[in-house]
Amino acid sequence: MKVGFFQFAPKFGEIQRNLDQILNAIEAFTGDLLVLPELALSGYQFASKTEVEALAQDRQSPIFQTLQSALHDRGLHVVLGFAECADGCLYNSAVLMGSEGIIGIYRKTHLFFEENLWFSPGNTGFQVWDIGGAKVGIMVCFDWFYPESARTLTVKGADILCHPSNLVLPFCPDAMVTRCLENRVFAVTANRIGQEERGGKPPLRFIGMSEVVAPNGSILHRAEASQSELYECEIDIAQARNKRINPYNDLLKDRQPQWYVGEGE
Amino acid sequence: MKVGFFQFAPKFGEIQRNLDQILNAIEAFTGDLLVLPELALSGYQFASKTEVEALAQDRQSPIFQTLQSALHDRGLHVVLGFAECADGCLYNSAVLMGSEGIIGIYRKTHLFFEENLWFSPGNTGFQVWDIGGAKVGIMVCFDWFYPESARTLTVKGADILCHPSNLVLPFCPDAMVTRCLENRVFAVTANRIGQEERGGKPPLRFIGMSEVVAPNGSILHRAEASQSELYECEIDIAQARNKRINPYNDLLKDRQPQWYVGEGE
Repeated sequence: MKVGFFQFAPKFGEIQRNLDQILNAIEAFTGDLLVLPELALSGYQFASKTEVEALAQDRQSPIFQTLQSALHDRGLHVVLGFAECADGCLYNSAVLMGSEGIIGIYRKTHLFFEENLWFSPGNTGFQVWDIGGAKVGIMVCFDWFYPESARTLTVKGADILCHPSNLVLPFCPDAMVTRCLENRVFAVTANRIGQEERGGKPPLRFIGMSEVVAPNGSILHRAEASQSELYECEIDIAQARNKRINPYNDLLKDRQPQWYVGEGE
Repeated sequence: MKVGFFQFAPKFGEIQRNLDQILNAIEAFTGDLLVLPELALSGYQFASKTEVEALAQDRQSPIFQTLQSALHDRGLHVVLGFAECADGCLYNSAVLMGSEGIIGIYRKTHLFFEENLWFSPGNTGFQVWDIGGAKVGIMVCFDWFYPESARTLTVKGADILCHPSNLVLPFCPDAMVTRCLENRVFAVTANRIGQEERGGKPPLRFIGMSEVVAPNGSILHRAEASQSELYECEIDIAQARNKRINPYNDLLKDRQPQWYVGEGE
């Protein structure tokens, strides 16, 4: 199957403009699974909770109907980060969509920095969906920092970690190599580029470097730090389903949970 | 405090020769904590279980008395990998010693490749010892591959991961940056150098690149791939005890175990 990402610079607050760019990317993409950045509809650097409320979407938002129409008869699945309002709370979420509409929504578990001021911690947990040909899990940006995120998705059967991001620190692109190795999964990190400077706060510069990493730790492609890019490549899901490391080691069978904090100890 | 490693090439089966090199390193070392490679007394590439039995030590081995004598009045702690026989089993172990003798023994949890033919999986779990000025945990070589190893030691209070190794694959040195970041701990990986070719098997080439990594992910020093080196550097343990990432995030308090496989799910 073919997977990829769209690295671009969402403009803060300009939902229609950002959506148009996403729709253009969907139209140009010829693969099976396209991952888009975190908060790709709204932008990232909110100055108040009121701002988040004004830019958040619920499941019934016409935006998702527009996206569903764009996916109609495409056989394409899309993972897109967005600010979600639900049950009186705000979440930093990512939606998985196909031609049938919304398949699932993941709400970011590990909130970073001022996100803690606007968003509630996710209450969905880490979920895996079978999109036909692959099982995909979603983790959002800073979730990478906690190895339990990728591990939980892997134990639940994910072949591909879909990873919408708005990275500002330099560590994640290399760390995803370790995440893929230690779980023998593919990862598609879709980061954004550009800069935001709002509310009198220090500017945030997003690092780009979106990437697709293979279960053997090889970086199949890494985007530039400041260029938009729509990328796709062929991957062999069988690589993620073979958890055998060598004739004597099987990644998941060799876990020793009786000695792991929270599992055995 | 000052921590470091001794990277060298143990010679297979020549315990006295290897011990002499270790004693020389202990004598020359001026720091507080010295980490030595995995299986540093015996060498690595066993051809049979009988060979392991012939080279394994128990707690009463005179080797540990010799080491204790070398540590007398030194205020130095040493972590050393060795083949252990105990209770009729063989373990790939590492001992923590001070001037008072053996403080603790860790038995490798995650065995790699043919180690599964000779050794029993460790039955000690991951332990942390207070050596005065720092709490140290031990993990051995391939334990790095399972993020649960370093995480468990961290939750138990380790400031420093002591990591005796015999690495042959290229991934660990960079992965330890991620391990230190995600746990905000120091790590001292003591790898060996050289090559072993025994029992008609393909040769094993050890990659060196022993290193000390800081909680912020910076590599304080990385050794060469094929040169012996006795290295030590000053570290500030307070860096490992500050688990605050920014004003809104605390590494351990922000864990969300209710969503982690085996802990909540």
